[in-house]
Amino acid sequence: MKALVYHGPGKKAFEDHAKPEIAAPTDAIVRITKTTICGTDLHILKGDLPSCAPGRILGHEGVGVIDSIGSAVTAFKPGDRVLISCITACGKCEYCRKQMYSHCTTGGWILGNRIDGTQAEFVRIPHADNSLYPIPAGADEEALVMLSDILPTGFECGVLNGKVQPGGTVAIVGSGPIGLAALLTAQFYSPAEIIMVDLDDNRLEIAKRFGATKTVNSTDGKAAEAVKTLTGGRGVGTAIEAVGIPATFELCEKIVGPGGVIANIGVHGTKVDLHLENLWDRNITITTRLVDAVSTPMLLNVVAAHKIDPKLLITHHFKLDGILEAYETFGHAADTRALKVILEA
Amino acid sequence: MKALVYHGPGKKAFEDHAKPEIAAPTDAIVRITKTTICGTDLHILKGDLPSCAPGRILGHEGVGVIDSIGSAVTAFKPGDRVLISCITACGKCEYCRKQMYSHCTTGGWILGNRIDGTQAEFVRIPHADNSLYPIPAGADEEALVMLSDILPTGFECGVLNGKVQPGGTVAIVGSGPIGLAALLTAQFYSPAEIIMVDLDDNRLEIAKRFGATKTVNSTDGKAAEAVKTLTGGRGVGTAIEAVGIPATFELCEKIVGPGGVIANIGVHGTKVDLHLENLWDRNITITTRLVDAVSTPMLLNVVAAHKIDPKLLITHHFKLDGILEAYETFGHAADTRALKVILEA
Amino acid sequence: MKALVYHGPGKKAFEDHAKPEIAAPTDAIVRITKTTICGTDLHILKGDLPSCAPGRILGHEGVGVIDSIGSAVTAFKPGDRVLISCITACGKCEYCRKQMYSHCTTGGWILGNRIDGTQAEFVRIPHADNSLYPIPAGADEEALVMLSDILPTGFECGVLNGKVQPGGTVAIVGSGPIGLAALLTAQFYSPAEIIMVDLDDNRLEIAKRFGATKTVNSTDGKAAEAVKTLTGGRGVGTAIEAVGIPATFELCEKIVGPGGVIANIGVHGTKVDLHLENLWDRNITITTRLVDAVSTPMLLNVVAAHKIDPKLLITHHFKLDGILEAYETFGHAADTRALKVILEA
Amino acid sequence: MKALVYHGPGKKAFEDHAKPEIAAPTDAIVRITKTTICGTDLHILKGDLPSCAPGRILGHEGVGVIDSIGSAVTAFKPGDRVLISCITACGKCEYCRKQMYSHCTTGGWILGNRIDGTQAEFVRIPHADNSLYPIPAGADEEALVMLSDILPTGFECGVLNGKVQPGGTVAIVGSGPIGLAALLTAQFYSPAEIIMVDLDDNRLEIAKRFGATKTVNSTDGKAAEAVKTLTGGRGVGTAIEAVGIPATFELCEKIVGPGGVIANIGVHGTKVDLHLENLWDRNITITTRLVDAVSTPMLLNVVAAHKIDPKLLITHHFKLDGILEAYETFGHAADTRALKVILEA
Repeated sequence: MKALVYHGPGKKAFEDHAKPEIAAPTDAIVRITKTTICGTDLHILKGDLPSCAPGRILGHEGVGVIDSIGSAVTAFKPGDRVLISCITACGKCEYCRKQMYSHCTTGGWILGNRIDGTQAEFVRIPHADNSLYPIPAGADEEALVMLSDILPTGFECGVLNGKVQPGGTVAIVGSGPIGLAALLTAQFYSPAEIIMVDLDDNRLEIAKRFGATKTVNSTDGKAAEAVKTLTGGRGVGTAIEAVGIPATFELCEKIVGPGGVIANIGVHGTKVDLHLENLWDRNITITTRLVDAVSTPMLLNVVAAHKIDPKLLITHHFKLDGILEAYETFGHAADTRALKVILEA
Repeated sequence: MKALVYHGPGKKAFEDHAKPEIAAPTDAIVRITKTTICGTDLHILKGDLPSCAPGRILGHEGVGVIDSIGSAVTAFKPGDRVLISCITACGKCEYCRKQMYSHCTTGGWILGNRIDGTQAEFVRIPHADNSLYPIPAGADEEALVMLSDILPTGFECGVLNGKVQPGGTVAIVGSGPIGLAALLTAQFYSPAEIIMVDLDDNRLEIAKRFGATKTVNSTDGKAAEAVKTLTGGRGVGTAIEAVGIPATFELCEKIVGPGGVIANIGVHGTKVDLHLENLWDRNITITTRLVDAVSTPMLLNVVAAHKIDPKLLITHHFKLDGILEAYETFGHAADTRALKVILEA
Repeated sequence: MKALVYHGPGKKAFEDHAKPEIAAPTDAIVRITKTTICGTDLHILKGDLPSCAPGRILGHEGVGVIDSIGSAVTAFKPGDRVLISCITACGKCEYCRKQMYSHCTTGGWILGNRIDGTQAEFVRIPHADNSLYPIPAGADEEALVMLSDILPTGFECGVLNGKVQPGGTVAIVGSGPIGLAALLTAQFYSPAEIIMVDLDDNRLEIAKRFGATKTVNSTDGKAAEAVKTLTGGRGVGTAIEAVGIPATFELCEKIVGPGGVIANIGVHGTKVDLHLENLWDRNITITTRLVDAVSTPMLLNVVAAHKIDPKLLITHHFKLDGILEAYETFGHAADTRALKVILEA
Repeated sequence: MKALVYHGPGKKAFEDHAKPEIAAPTDAIVRITKTTICGTDLHILKGDLPSCAPGRILGHEGVGVIDSIGSAVTAFKPGDRVLISCITACGKCEYCRKQMYSHCTTGGWILGNRIDGTQAEFVRIPHADNSLYPIPAGADEEALVMLSDILPTGFECGVLNGKVQPGGTVAIVGSGPIGLAALLTAQFYSPAEIIMVDLDDNRLEIAKRFGATKTVNSTDGKAAEAVKTLTGGRGVGTAIEAVGIPATFELCEKIVGPGGVIANIGVHGTKVDLHLENLWDRNITITTRLVDAVSTPMLLNVVAAHKIDPKLLITHHFKLDGILEAYETFGHAADTRALKVILEA
């Protein structure tokens, strides 16, 4: 089969690769029909993730069709259409029992990282019964690709952890795909205000179309003051960090109000300054989380009920064999205005 | 009347002062029978808290007897014995309605800070109905002085925020009075392990008597490794910071396990390093809080039911006119082994 | 002044009455500008509520202008426009401190019940700082009359207690004003399905316009089967009882799924059969609640943000001196199709 | 092998039976070392549970040693010592993902009910990885038999659902084994008062030894008044029903205070009267639950930490081949004062 293989920092190839095989009774092999590229794939290609060794097929998102199953798989049979979760869960370890699938002792985020991933014609999915979801009849499969990672990540790490509430005030720092995913899913809880902060007016314009009530361009370094003014000096109840650098996290520290939450989504490569001299008595909460993808069944319901349109996030389409061009497009988002791209196998 | 008055950094005097008077219909004047000294009073005396102006009577803890009440006070009458909360709450502002009394727009921690405090023969208590508690018949008033501040602080900021649970694993970094208050109140929830960390073997010995299941002397700089070993490599579910310096907070970052909570109690004067490069995907929660003293009614019940003995925290007794000596004793705790002192008026 | 006075079962008059006066330092006198009639007022007129003595002015909803205040009122001054909560709260008793204002030891639902109410030119509001809310500039005051009682009741007793969640399935039994208020506010949480059950096709038609995704006419006695079919045999996650008779409560028992909640809003005059022989092992929760009106500040935010339009509930308008005709209209809702009526003073 | 087999209402035999075999890749066969008898076994023998067909081996509690495993079992190997949960969980169905193992679509309470149980030399455990727990080195295995069912049942259905809290007031109606299990585990949360209600002074005496702070003998029909008096007229915050008949449930309705919870543990065979005419405005919660046994890992920790001594519940010992005598003893508890019996294989 064909697959996108990582060959060390800066190197990748779309090349022939052996088709995966069932390795454990709980495995399934899935024929990929649609997949996509994640910002994390770009990080791997820069060499930022030592857990991902050269020779690995990338990708942790997608939909497909069951090709074969191991002897202990009971929820699926060959031919079933499935959504692939970016998180693999055994359903029985200490962490899975607490719904913390991200820390599954034999799973977590392993696809396209510690084991071969979804940017290929076929993929092996361990713990298939807990890591795949049946696609409802009549569902738009392209939309569901957004449920593999980006929507549960925005929702769980940003919205759920951030305790977004009816009538509340939310700021989302970073209006890229993940910030927009948080913006879409924050509206499940009817906050009164969602203030979007970014450096790029184009992305802020998109945010308005996605439901932001206010936008702040932070280029002038005065975003904290702007958010304070927009909230009558109180600060926000929920500040969602959706970038992953010290400046944006520290902005969240400045704009969160007493009793509020800073919900971190960003993947950070360095420490940040936590100004406890200002925050120790502010009754705030800071959360971090690798997506557990426990909200996938709920998101499937919400999409089926048309409460949200995940396709808003899709800007470009390619065939799987055009994946190198797709990487180019996705990797230069500032120019191409790409959010998420769909790769069709 | 006599009172302990702050006269600027490094200066205090026990001197004559005008008796306070009712200034609003919701005020009460309380005759102090017992009060104490808090670590925060020492901070004020160093000049660390600009909110506390010279000329202020210090102190925010104590028990006493109602001397007089304003026309809108309905819960108390002259002669009633009362516990004074360190937190003054109006019961009607945006924050009080969320049980966040610490941020009451006309209250919060004002006693012995923005208004005159309890180290005196009399004190004026604003919003008396929400800021005083009736002392149950037969209660040990000396024990109840510990309910003005130190027990609700250890409980709310450390134990409640830290989500201590039956069967859980807790580490408390700092075995001073406030760490010990967290230790006492953590036991309300029957955790399986409470690991106490400090530099001082004497304090760790006290911690064992108070219920710690393990102790770690952190002098060798290897406390993180020790706690990891004691928890089978997992880290703790709850790490309570009870010191207020970067080193102890960063120790908490190292020992908290996936899905765990760092509950900060310490009063920090400087920023700390938050190692998000390690923590962004660990599903942890960090909380800060100024005590709201919303747990006072519960603590009164628990003490009445003999589930806890607050008097364990009391090491020394003085008359109110010996307050200067009491400050000496409390201020040199390493030598005097003082935890809390009682001043009797 | 003029007022609608209850004179015992079946008797009422719109007549002259002494203007109320400040009786405690925490009182305010409000000049009513708009009020309305509640189903509970009809119950009182039938003689169902012994707590309401003859001679009482009815009404517990409305907006108005502060006429005068007691010496301890700090949040309002004469001339301020205010929303009157149906629940009076002292903010300081055991129950108010738990946000259970409905059980305030000197308040709760007393307006138009134990003390004179709002169907008059003026009303005395005890504990004014906790029982009135400032009307935001530019707000539609007519819409806000719905926030005195009906919207917080539908929201707190039905939606909050019923734990309505994104992607969830809700059934509301009873499509009268209170069921419709639950329907409007349930949408704050983006459930996938809201099934409305009633005997009246007209009311079900209104429910569809208000956002119901499915409707069931229960006239044929087969509503339980219909709801089971609509939910794939699972039953609903939330069943909201919005009628107050045994048949509708028992319908909720039949349609709630494993792990679900029955949230009672209805005012019941008799016992119901609880079929524990079927439910003991179903992991269900049943809740009852008299509205606490703690959600009023949130509802003000949500209405200001146009997340909901309370005026959908208003079908008729009268002048205050047309109140007897308004009672006729409201009391014959099946014919007049009245939901809520507005009385303008 | 030998096993206790149900042969229809009133009939049972300890007889030869084929040894169970692995039937699915996720199965394990466990050699029983200790088991016990549950009140539910007596119900089955009366013919009350049609789900249990004649020919079935009874029993759903016990500890043992892994004899053999299916190809997909990864958490255990032959020779491992294990605790058997009364609840079988697949870990992957809709309900298991919500930690509602009791409603597992291919599990739940099936042992000794829908499939052969533990009162035998060997038992087949489906979904072994999620339904067995490793026994910690040095643990008292006899004590752990209490963790198969009775302690998680008392804890989850009574204490957790009942929201027992530090300083709170609890009443437990029924001082049999399950009420005593609730009493033991309620103390994890340090309530101020635990009032035990029963008809039998002997059982109330045991309750006092187990930690009850007050006892009420309800023989005189005045238990409601007694509990009200003991709570200053307020009623309790948590009322735990641990009998399963209308009279005891209705007693709970009378003694629960405003804002309180009635947590049902009892297995009910008939409907009860729910007095909504009294309760509709009391802000109460009623819960039902079949034990999910999700608290088993926590209980293992708590027992290991000596926070609770489950052996207090064990009154009699037998060899497995004395099981008919053990049934006699357990079935006449009023005379024999039996709580739980241990059967050693």
